[in-house]
Amino acid sequence: MEVYFQGIQGSYSEQAVIKYFGKKVKAKGVDSFEEVFDHVSKKGTYGVVPVENSFTGSITKNYDLLYQEKVTVIAEIYSPINHVLLGNLNTLLKDIITVYSHPQALSQCSDFIRKHNWKTVNEYDTAGAAKLVKERQTKHQAAIASSICADLFGMKILAEGIMNNKNNTTRFLVFVGDQNAPTDLVREKTSIVFKIKHLPGALVRSLESFSKINLTKIESRPDLSTNWEYLFYVDFEGGTNEEKIKEALRKLNKTVSFMKVIGSYPLGKK
Amino acid sequence: MEVYFQGIQGSYSEQAVIKYFGKKVKAKGVDSFEEVFDHVSKKGTYGVVPVENSFTGSITKNYDLLYQEKVTVIAEIYSPINHVLLGNLNTLLKDIITVYSHPQALSQCSDFIRKHNWKTVNEYDTAGAAKLVKERQTKHQAAIASSICADLFGMKILAEGIMNNKNNTTRFLVFVGDQNAPTDLVREKTSIVFKIKHLPGALVRSLESFSKINLTKIESRPDLSTNWEYLFYVDFEGGTNEEKIKEALRKLNKTVSFMKVIGSYPLGKK
Repeated sequence: MEVYFQGIQGSYSEQAVIKYFGKKVKAKGVDSFEEVFDHVSKKGTYGVVPVENSFTGSITKNYDLLYQEKVTVIAEIYSPINHVLLGNLNTLLKDIITVYSHPQALSQCSDFIRKHNWKTVNEYDTAGAAKLVKERQTKHQAAIASSICADLFGMKILAEGIMNNKNNTTRFLVFVGDQNAPTDLVREKTSIVFKIKHLPGALVRSLESFSKINLTKIESRPDLSTNWEYLFYVDFEGGTNEEKIKEALRKLNKTVSFMKVIGSYPLGKK
Repeated sequence: MEVYFQGIQGSYSEQAVIKYFGKKVKAKGVDSFEEVFDHVSKKGTYGVVPVENSFTGSITKNYDLLYQEKVTVIAEIYSPINHVLLGNLNTLLKDIITVYSHPQALSQCSDFIRKHNWKTVNEYDTAGAAKLVKERQTKHQAAIASSICADLFGMKILAEGIMNNKNNTTRFLVFVGDQNAPTDLVREKTSIVFKIKHLPGALVRSLESFSKINLTKIESRPDLSTNWEYLFYVDFEGGTNEEKIKEALRKLNKTVSFMKVIGSYPLGKK
């Protein structure tokens, strides 16, 4: 069984794959989120992508792809993020000039970076940044990544507890192509996306369908096909097999110009 | 009169300042969004920051600061974004190895960058990236920034139309310290932030106060003081001086555990 994620061995996405599927699957890292969706929708494999971090908010690119691509979400995974500063074995903190990592990780450690006045360079993922610094064998560069990269690449942990905020958690979604959507899934939470006509009270009217349901997330996102028209992404508790939810979705469907159920799946453990 | 923005001369934020205030104000560029808020809340000056882009979504850091700091929004500015690729006068496209810019600008031109397989490096702002490439006088580096930086720094436009999507617009907010909030402002649109208790239907119940009002934006953001509790940012048409809006806010206040009016201001021209 193959599971696609964006990144390389040692990345947080790979850790989320292992947390959910165990170590027996073939976890396949690719360069971009688009490639993950491409493999999943065309080849009948699984995909895992991050969608939301407890501090930096949504990974908007993946919300756009969940709207555009023919995939169905089958699970959510909450995975703790615990960044450390990694360097080569001879590196000291005072040698560092530049720090490499994913933009979100650099943002999550911005106070620590600013205090040291280091330059920052974007990489596609945290583990890739660590590997790069290792390969260059320089003491002037460091990476921000998971502590498991220290063992994996033979690097030194130069600093721990470097994040602006504790309790940093990323939410990942597991998805399959629509043609492979399971019918026997435990459904405790549902993610939908919809579009409304720009009329006074239209959003409130559409949400009134959900007056007895616990919404856990709502976000308006620009619709990429127009400018300043909005799509609404909503998560709520309850599965699409429940009569209460079916009724709410029927009502919603009458008030919106577009609606798609992204998935209905078990609650992830926080 | 002083107006603070994040960035340097030639940045999109400075262009937004000039669009709103004209060229006679002292536009003061600082290093970080925090510094902008700090100057405004303590010194009685004006501040201008980006909050939302039509394609990449919200600039979450500024939403957090609008919630935390004692400031009042007095206007919104919609400013078109038109990135170009800038290099030194002897640079050719084929020489380029690395592209420098703000992370949002790199993201907005990601298709173009990926096609050329260039490395990307984060800078604090687009104009700063252009200036840096100019100072280094190398032909292996380029910057993504506004075309006005070409004249400003004496650089060459190497490519135009490099954005993934046309019609790219950023929304900026203009704000003052609470103690300087004007009383005679035209109020056509209002931005609020509120927090609700995690009960079934609580968000819908809170929004029912707005059933006759046109909501133009809604976004749940993690509350930085807790983990996975949410604040809701809502924009709607109408001013806090209107009876209909006053009534809606009174109703809302009864259903939420916290509420703050970020500002009530004229509609910006799109």
